[in-house]
Amino acid sequence: MKIRFYNARIMPLNNNDKGCPIITGELHTNGSKISYVGKPVENVESVESFESFDREIDCKGNLIMPGFKNAHTHSAMTFLRSYADDLPLQEWLFNQIFPREDKLTPDDVYILTKLAIMEYLTGGITSCFDMYFFRDSIASAAVDTGYRMALCGAVNGGAENAKTLAREYQKFNNYNELISYQLGFHAEYTTSLELMKEVARLSRNFKAPVFTHNSETEKEVAECKERHGKTPTALFEDLGMLEYGGGGFHCVHFDENDMNIFKNRGLWAVTNPGSNTKLASGIAPVWQMQKKGINLAIGTDGPASNNCLDMFREMFLVTGLQKIREKDAAVCDAQNVLIMAAKNGALAMGLVDSDCLSEGKNADLIMIDLNQPNMQPLNSIASNLVYSGSKSNVKMTMINGKILYENGEFFIGEKPEDIYRKSNEIADRLR
Amino acid sequence: MKIRFYNARIMPLNNNDKGCPIITGELHTNGSKISYVGKPVENVESVESFESFDREIDCKGNLIMPGFKNAHTHSAMTFLRSYADDLPLQEWLFNQIFPREDKLTPDDVYILTKLAIMEYLTGGITSCFDMYFFRDSIASAAVDTGYRMALCGAVNGGAENAKTLAREYQKFNNYNELISYQLGFHAEYTTSLELMKEVARLSRNFKAPVFTHNSETEKEVAECKERHGKTPTALFEDLGMLEYGGGGFHCVHFDENDMNIFKNRGLWAVTNPGSNTKLASGIAPVWQMQKKGINLAIGTDGPASNNCLDMFREMFLVTGLQKIREKDAAVCDAQNVLIMAAKNGALAMGLVDSDCLSEGKNADLIMIDLNQPNMQPLNSIASNLVYSGSKSNVKMTMINGKILYENGEFFIGEKPEDIYRKSNEIADRLR
Repeated sequence: MKIRFYNARIMPLNNNDKGCPIITGELHTNGSKISYVGKPVENVESVESFESFDREIDCKGNLIMPGFKNAHTHSAMTFLRSYADDLPLQEWLFNQIFPREDKLTPDDVYILTKLAIMEYLTGGITSCFDMYFFRDSIASAAVDTGYRMALCGAVNGGAENAKTLAREYQKFNNYNELISYQLGFHAEYTTSLELMKEVARLSRNFKAPVFTHNSETEKEVAECKERHGKTPTALFEDLGMLEYGGGGFHCVHFDENDMNIFKNRGLWAVTNPGSNTKLASGIAPVWQMQKKGINLAIGTDGPASNNCLDMFREMFLVTGLQKIREKDAAVCDAQNVLIMAAKNGALAMGLVDSDCLSEGKNADLIMIDLNQPNMQPLNSIASNLVYSGSKSNVKMTMINGKILYENGEFFIGEKPEDIYRKSNEIADRLR
Repeated sequence: MKIRFYNARIMPLNNNDKGCPIITGELHTNGSKISYVGKPVENVESVESFESFDREIDCKGNLIMPGFKNAHTHSAMTFLRSYADDLPLQEWLFNQIFPREDKLTPDDVYILTKLAIMEYLTGGITSCFDMYFFRDSIASAAVDTGYRMALCGAVNGGAENAKTLAREYQKFNNYNELISYQLGFHAEYTTSLELMKEVARLSRNFKAPVFTHNSETEKEVAECKERHGKTPTALFEDLGMLEYGGGGFHCVHFDENDMNIFKNRGLWAVTNPGSNTKLASGIAPVWQMQKKGINLAIGTDGPASNNCLDMFREMFLVTGLQKIREKDAAVCDAQNVLIMAAKNGALAMGLVDSDCLSEGKNADLIMIDLNQPNMQPLNSIASNLVYSGSKSNVKMTMINGKILYENGEFFIGEKPEDIYRKSNEIADRLR
């Protein structure tokens, strides 16, 4: 399939300069890849096989940009959306969430992940870094819909151990072009020291990065200090787990030493402001990390704790909460936040061919409708995206060269109403 | 025009009980009013003139609810959206905003208000409390599009004085069924003591409430204390300005005495979390006010400081920021926030016939598409609206019995592309 997008504004994010420059021109895809990004093609014959496009889309001045990357989520928790809100964290997690998760089946996770994928598509999120169980179901849901998914290991003892992690690492990194896998464990507070040591050994064996929940709550950090005499980050460093990179999800309660370790190891701090807000976990020191040059990406966290899977909300919260935290309206400008959301997330989860728009990169891209009142006037498109953008502006979402969502319609191999019906049946059964 | 909405879920918000109960049934409108809300009509002949509906809309199980009420905004500031973000407040206001506002013409304000109205319609906001200048232009834009607008006086000396306020009060409260007017002045820090005393006299003459910006920033409160030895709220109380009610916009830096005055006088605290976040003004003590029983409503503030006019964002921020402020995930539950956004705002701005859905009330209502992934499963529709809702869920917006927005199309008497073009011309001219 060869597709031509013309009459477009294009924000390629394909250099490391500051800012988000926009060109006027066109973009072509060939199969799963981008084959051209540049000026309008004036002389049609000059482009080899130009006449062979399967589809030509007049963008009418709308914006083509890389899709958003959701660098931390638990997709299948869709069944718990709006199930138990406005509760204290401990009651929420231990009395409401965990008992219901125990009853999930692999078939449930398959459907619930599909529901999340639909939501990602409506908001222009073209890949996500998914940490949940029944990973075969997650991978199947992604492949069957055409979605790009980086799976994150989530061992925490119990039935899963380091062997699980090693087996899955090899399996899912040789599974399908849409699927990849990174080493990971749930969190310090749910994982034994022995298992964390095995994860560290595995990381060195595979020369692979390691990801985990890190310093989401004050309680987590305080209890880790009681157990181990140091913060989670310092513990992971001392266990030799960070030599090949990786990162932490949340990173809310970080001290100076934690930040220095993240900086020195080139780790990714994935911030989750929607979830940290709704669960009253606090405001991560994103601006402090940004000033230090720490790698930053953004995640929605799962739909039970956010409750939506919407990068527009997260972008506003990233900058807005830093402005509140630092009492300074100038911190965390829109362009940097946009780069975190649309480019950095791909690098964090190892999707180095989905980070930007240039020849040879994966065709993971979205069209933003600028002809809606919240995007007018066009003083600054980057600011509009971060400060007034909405999923209602997402006209089209393409992954791996295939259009999976366009003008409100899904092209994912199963009818939306069937996915809704099955999801409600699961929610009813587990209530 | 008589319209029948059937096969609907309906959230009438028509009682003062806690919660947001939903019924299954239908709603009829007759001209500008609601003529029926209730169970499905089984026997068609039993409803007088049932056959005379001009249109019957199958809601397919989607939700009909009162429109959102934007209880504080400066609509025409659309031209400054994304113009000067990420700047310190003083530089933003004095070097970027004020000089450009000085160049606005009445014709500009007419177009820029129309652009804002379009955005309100896409997000299901059916009325707003608009504080800006060139109020003839604002009123014309509202009447010409069919929008319900409560104008808020904004005297602050200069060309406008108490006589302006008195004249406008009488004029705009007898202007058009869509237009109303409340006494108001800009803020303590921009208004002389003499003028505030005149406003107080006017309030007693008309037996009318008074509205103003109040305690938005720490600086504002500190300087008021220096000038007058008391907080803005205490000053207004001592000037005898609050005897007939009214309220304050922002109310971020309130002390115990301020809250007691608001409680005792039955004043409205209008919170603006998007703006307070983006301008680093702080987090208002909404939960403290809610516990005291203070009347609460929600506003977007103007599009230069937010930058979008979206009640879904504001609702999430109201509860989310309180959870952060109080370090408690249980505060400010979704149903209370929804009532603030969809019902209370009308009462705050004096639109007592637009607050809820029942026979004889104004037909100011919206249809929410539940068949989108962010609204599934249907564990709790109120929670879904507050925590995962988006303007993309707004299928239809009706004001005063007329559908002004439906399935992405506007019915406002002027073409969207013309409003966009003119708005960009204004933005370019004033840049």
